[in-house]
Amino acid sequence: MPSTPLLCPRCGTGAKDFSGCGACRAEGIGANPVPPLADLSGLSLRSYRGGPWGWPSALPVTGPPVTLGEGGTPNVRIHFRDPADGELWVKYEGANPTGSHKDRAMAVGVAAAVAAGADTVVAASSGNAGAAAAAYAGRAGLRCVVFTTGGVPEPLRAQIDALGAFRVVREDSSARNAAMGEAVERFGWYPLTSFASPSPGGNAYANEGYKSVAYEIARDFGDRVATVVVPTSRADLLSGIERGFRELRTAGLLARVPRLVAAEPEAAAPFTAALARSAPAEQERTSVVYRPSPAFSLGEERPTWQGLDALRRSDGSAVAVPTEVFMAEHRALGAQGLFLEPSSAVGVAAARRLVREHGGLVIAVGTATGLKATAGIRRPSPTTVPELSQLTL
Amino acid sequence: MPSTPLLCPRCGTGAKDFSGCGACRAEGIGANPVPPLADLSGLSLRSYRGGPWGWPSALPVTGPPVTLGEGGTPNVRIHFRDPADGELWVKYEGANPTGSHKDRAMAVGVAAAVAAGADTVVAASSGNAGAAAAAYAGRAGLRCVVFTTGGVPEPLRAQIDALGAFRVVREDSSARNAAMGEAVERFGWYPLTSFASPSPGGNAYANEGYKSVAYEIARDFGDRVATVVVPTSRADLLSGIERGFRELRTAGLLARVPRLVAAEPEAAAPFTAALARSAPAEQERTSVVYRPSPAFSLGEERPTWQGLDALRRSDGSAVAVPTEVFMAEHRALGAQGLFLEPSSAVGVAAARRLVREHGGLVIAVGTATGLKATAGIRRPSPTTVPELSQLTL
Ligand SMILES: [Zn+2]
Ligand SMILES: [Zn+2]
Repeated sequence: MPSTPLLCPRCGTGAKDFSGCGACRAEGIGANPVPPLADLSGLSLRSYRGGPWGWPSALPVTGPPVTLGEGGTPNVRIHFRDPADGELWVKYEGANPTGSHKDRAMAVGVAAAVAAGADTVVAASSGNAGAAAAAYAGRAGLRCVVFTTGGVPEPLRAQIDALGAFRVVREDSSARNAAMGEAVERFGWYPLTSFASPSPGGNAYANEGYKSVAYEIARDFGDRVATVVVPTSRADLLSGIERGFRELRTAGLLARVPRLVAAEPEAAAPFTAALARSAPAEQERTSVVYRPSPAFSLGEERPTWQGLDALRRSDGSAVAVPTEVFMAEHRALGAQGLFLEPSSAVGVAAARRLVREHGGLVIAVGTATGLKATAGIRRPSPTTVPELSQLTL
Repeated sequence: MPSTPLLCPRCGTGAKDFSGCGACRAEGIGANPVPPLADLSGLSLRSYRGGPWGWPSALPVTGPPVTLGEGGTPNVRIHFRDPADGELWVKYEGANPTGSHKDRAMAVGVAAAVAAGADTVVAASSGNAGAAAAAYAGRAGLRCVVFTTGGVPEPLRAQIDALGAFRVVREDSSARNAAMGEAVERFGWYPLTSFASPSPGGNAYANEGYKSVAYEIARDFGDRVATVVVPTSRADLLSGIERGFRELRTAGLLARVPRLVAAEPEAAAPFTAALARSAPAEQERTSVVYRPSPAFSLGEERPTWQGLDALRRSDGSAVAVPTEVFMAEHRALGAQGLFLEPSSAVGVAAARRLVREHGGLVIAVGTATGLKATAGIRRPSPTTVPELSQLTL
């Protein structure tokens, strides 16, 4: 591990590896030890060029950046029929090098792996994290092994393979995580994702890359932002964004932290279930039955502590979105030029409701391009264009 | 048509539609009437934020921008075993909203369609142009019809459908173009691509969006750039880049126009064949047999006049790359974190040879993400990671 120490934000225990806080795990809680917040005083948002390496001093890694040009993603305004309905923007993370927000994390995680002297990095992922790990490992000249289940969508499968990573397939996510844990222990391979149970939520150094989402939002919108909606699984992205906002507020670069909202597929919505309970001790021990949904990169059984903490600190909330609602949103986004993965539509659907009910400027993080998983996308009906029946050629 | 007039750069004839110069077509030559070059004097590269709308005054369109946040793409340096081999960068156009350089053109082309009062736009494309047309039409609230052949890769097919465009499938590209021509004539639909034969090479207003590639290169690298390599089919991108550089040099923002190189798949390389002839009259009448290659978005029978003109003006050249060479480049790029479409690897392979032979700073335009066409991508051999055979879990 690089030199910046990690401390459990729940109980204060130090960490020696990336399997989460052992003391909290003994209580059945997935808590992720984190590095100290960065001091952003003296920095200027106006000259911030975006991405994790735009402000390297905010990262817990010394040594050369590993980069493919991640971050600096565009904001696209959602059109409403009635503009009085509010102001909703999608921050389009599909513009990242491998097409998802995970690039921000893996850029930093792989740099940390290099600093730690690793020659092989590993990730347990059936989604975007595997592709991002493969890309940044390749960039740094490290070997990469991605542990998956059979459920990897075909474009992602091809992407991971084309990026030169070796895929190890196991029958379910618990067998996948166990195999990764064995590889980490026996071979000393560097873990870029979590593999412990309950999941603490990612490599804590890598997660620091997500702070750049907050920096970019602050640079582009300033204090106008009321709410940021984040598609949430283990809340690595959500809690990274909250940490970024907290750093900005502490340094006086932002007046307040926007309200953060975890958007989950209704089929597996542990944060929504947790926040329905009032006692923190009950919230952090919540468990739901995992059911798959078209939002393939989301869905967990347990909330992570880091996610609950981010929601509490930002006076936030969680929203569970039914499958038919986010798939309708997926089509509506497509019709206005935004082809996102279904998980991103979970966030936009939740954001659309929030902006209608509460007004204010709302930003939904659009986590990945729709090109990641294209099965099942249907052709629009020919009746859309009646003239076509008149063509003779 | 919007008001900026188009004049044939070969013979000076004015154009009334987007089917290319009629006078030149009568000679068997595809020449594309263009708007006047923009006057960039008074503009500053330092404050240029990238993309076609970064400098709207350089575009032949008045009226509101149509945008999804295109442009401002990252430069990724290629690692060589021996750094003395030179300096080669890929400008990664896969970071655009639909994952290809075509977004720069369609942003401007759709804005021109809106300015012309169109309600329906059409594109003939079995590749990235169709997806980009669909996205920007959706953004502007226009209907979009994409004429294709059966050979659309599955992810692109899904992308076009998800973006709400209607696909009309014809058996080959000549039937496709004929059907599009009928639709343009009978229904007054606005053409975002060429459909005439020989192809003049795109909608001349849309092509102005490509000038922003030159502006960004000039902003990021200044006069250090010796050569820019562009994967070339009809040379819409190549000639747009050359026009951008020419505007920069005229305004004194750049000392000289870099050498432009057209990179083609050897299977169908009309520019390479044309430049092997010495007389201009012979060059512009060159024809080769089209053979398909894995670089599915490239390959033509005829060089366009605009492409020949761009190569001549920049003292450039054309390079034909054998399939096995660009597919090996495709794998090599993947192994260092860049997953591009095979067509992009045609450009990088050509650039790698140029930088080795001539030195200097070379930029290859990486036209699209590899997620556009994922069939046939093979898994790396397990022998890459011998430890995996020891896993017990
Ligand atoms: Zn703890
Ligand atoms: Zn002419």
